[in-house]
Amino acid sequence: MIVNFDSTAPETVYKILIGSVLPRPIAWVSSIDRNGNANLAPFSFFTVASSNPPVLCFAPALKNELIEGTQKAKPKDTLKNIQETGEFVVNIVSREIAEKMNQSSSSYPAAVSEFEMTGLTPAPSKYIKPPRVAESLINFECKLNQVISFGDHPGAGNLVLGNILCAHLDESVYKNGRVDLDVLQPVGRLAGIEYCTVEERFSMIRPEV
Amino acid sequence: MIVNFDSTAPETVYKILIGSVLPRPIAWVSSIDRNGNANLAPFSFFTVASSNPPVLCFAPALKNELIEGTQKAKPKDTLKNIQETGEFVVNIVSREIAEKMNQSSSSYPAAVSEFEMTGLTPAPSKYIKPPRVAESLINFECKLNQVISFGDHPGAGNLVLGNILCAHLDESVYKNGRVDLDVLQPVGRLAGIEYCTVEERFSMIRPEV
Repeated sequence: MIVNFDSTAPETVYKILIGSVLPRPIAWVSSIDRNGNANLAPFSFFTVASSNPPVLCFAPALKNELIEGTQKAKPKDTLKNIQETGEFVVNIVSREIAEKMNQSSSSYPAAVSEFEMTGLTPAPSKYIKPPRVAESLINFECKLNQVISFGDHPGAGNLVLGNILCAHLDESVYKNGRVDLDVLQPVGRLAGIEYCTVEERFSMIRPEV
Repeated sequence: MIVNFDSTAPETVYKILIGSVLPRPIAWVSSIDRNGNANLAPFSFFTVASSNPPVLCFAPALKNELIEGTQKAKPKDTLKNIQETGEFVVNIVSREIAEKMNQSSSSYPAAVSEFEMTGLTPAPSKYIKPPRVAESLINFECKLNQVISFGDHPGAGNLVLGNILCAHLDESVYKNGRVDLDVLQPVGRLAGIEYCTVEERFSMIRPEV
């Protein structure tokens, strides 16, 4: 069957996309507002925008908030913070800390730190102000490159691109120039409330032509 | 340890990125050049850039080709075709056709169709000229939104954004408004020559706050 996207409810389109584009890696993004309040939230519309130069991208949609009886679009704290400060950290989620990542997806008030609510440890970054998640085995410090906005309506997509300044790699996970997958144990996002691990693997030799 | 990305070899940066941002979904992109020659190639720097409006993005880096003794940057056929025609299809890769996807990653000459080389069936699209992969259970027809270029050096990243016009969903895979993961059996990209399936799953209820 064909689903025309210009005549289909946004919620249906969303369900088709999260059910089709998967498994998705998770960007667990830490940021701070201009007063220094830290925020931490996961996003699974996330990938490498460019390896050379190194650029990551992730997509925080606008929220839909009922303000004085009217539905209004509002940026999530992560997007607001990045637009204010131009800095963020992408932390990688291992299976062991997946529950804390999920806990950090709650809509706490902006002044509430997800670090405190989840008991995670903020570690200082080298080049930027937002803290890293100390429990993550890999963190990428990023400076905002640009935000591509797809509108100002509730639910409107935004693509945040960030230039990577440096990677923090735990010594347990980075060996001989490679990330050890069995140590990292990354988590993939599926649809609904489902996630996957990468235990079930197979190999395919890249063809030479 | 800290790896500063401005003073690290591109190949090392690449290996850190593909080993950290994972598991990655795969965009199996079909396109045609201005003479109508079809091309098909997989890209795993791929995600949803926006759900509302629906936009997909993927990142084809520039190739490095030795031309008359000099290393020169050259767009892959997929990028060249999309810049020529403004159209492409993102086909979703199920486990059953993963080997054919891998086969299509070969560097065939531009005039050689990966459809013919792999024995896959080109099916007509509804709104655009590039064919879909008939064997894929899900295809997204896309019109180019923009290409963000990160340079013109060999290996330079490019992010292709495409507005989704429609989705083709096989009746076996789309039930009650949801994509059936057990039918789709999507494949995730890891580092090196490794891939994962999504057989090993777990659930986490999203917290209510």
